[in-house]
Amino acid sequence: MNVNKRISRASVLRMELYLEVLEQFQAEGRKYVTSSEIGELIGASPEKVRQDLFSLGTEGKPKVGYEVEQLARLIRSVFGLDAPKKACLVGLGNLGRALAGSTIWSRAGFTLGAIFDRDPAVIGTEAAGLRVRSIAEIFGVVKAEGIVAGVIAVPASAAQETADHMVNAGIRAIWNFAPIKLHVPEGVMVENQSLAWGLITLSYAMK
Amino acid sequence: MNVNKRISRASVLRMELYLEVLEQFQAEGRKYVTSSEIGELIGASPEKVRQDLFSLGTEGKPKVGYEVEQLARLIRSVFGLDAPKKACLVGLGNLGRALAGSTIWSRAGFTLGAIFDRDPAVIGTEAAGLRVRSIAEIFGVVKAEGIVAGVIAVPASAAQETADHMVNAGIRAIWNFAPIKLHVPEGVMVENQSLAWGLITLSYAMK
Repeated sequence: MNVNKRISRASVLRMELYLEVLEQFQAEGRKYVTSSEIGELIGASPEKVRQDLFSLGTEGKPKVGYEVEQLARLIRSVFGLDAPKKACLVGLGNLGRALAGSTIWSRAGFTLGAIFDRDPAVIGTEAAGLRVRSIAEIFGVVKAEGIVAGVIAVPASAAQETADHMVNAGIRAIWNFAPIKLHVPEGVMVENQSLAWGLITLSYAMK
Repeated sequence: MNVNKRISRASVLRMELYLEVLEQFQAEGRKYVTSSEIGELIGASPEKVRQDLFSLGTEGKPKVGYEVEQLARLIRSVFGLDAPKKACLVGLGNLGRALAGSTIWSRAGFTLGAIFDRDPAVIGTEAAGLRVRSIAEIFGVVKAEGIVAGVIAVPASAAQETADHMVNAGIRAIWNFAPIKLHVPEGVMVENQSLAWGLITLSYAMK
């Protein structure tokens, strides 16, 4: 079966939930799981679950469902979670510290390879087991460590400059937490993470 | 014109970008803006822009476009951003501090009315202009302050308990940053914010 490369964004967003549920089932020693069981836990219809998993190139067996371990392995493989890539984090304010210390890196198929800041009081201290480096070192460190992705957790006013440094250092994938649209050359992917979205969605739903 | 109440989730997510762009145009003193101009700035096609704005109940004038101020007011009204509601934040770790000090509250139509924590070393200190209170006070404070939404920024192990406290206090809208599925009674809205999603999306795109 071929993996459909055009998986919808919504499905990508659901995949983390699928993995969580599958890991739960694995921990319980379950061998098979049905689309209804998965759907109930992630809050989606069995049809939607089957559709999502079909887009990954797999189908459940009638009456039996999906093999838990195989499905988890497939998802990890399709999303590149089984071959961790190195990322760096720029900006060690509250948000940066929250990100550095979280489990998102491994969950998303990355390892955190370097942390940069421009505050002399922060440079040289330790966070998430790494010595914080000066942003001035980014070019050399990214090359030396084989870092391929960058996370921007600096204030909006410093975000474009940070992105420029990342691009110059050869980074081609940027996860941007600053609330501005970054200008990057073609071929550089930017994923904007707005922390306000969730609240806006709630605000709308509360009306 | 009637406002279509079934605005897609993707449109909701784009609305923050629309507002940002419109505020930029307002600051520049522009009176009208076209769907192409908006689309270019937010990275969407003019058709998609017209479709999104049509779902809000407005259409641009041919050759002229949308009236900037009117459109911004419409978006704020549809998403409830013009009538701020009070929210509370539970958990003042790194993530909680990043949220407390950010501009997301006003951008999303909320004001931050109270902050709770369970750490005696944090209770009584100040953050975002508020005195941090003990989580034990949540019931009384939520009632007294008229708080209607709650943000969970505690570790996963304490998230369900925190949600229970919020629900008991009468909160009906929860924005959950903990990576677990909360169990809440019917009628309580939960918006889960997974910080790993953006990275997973990048991981997938990098394959």
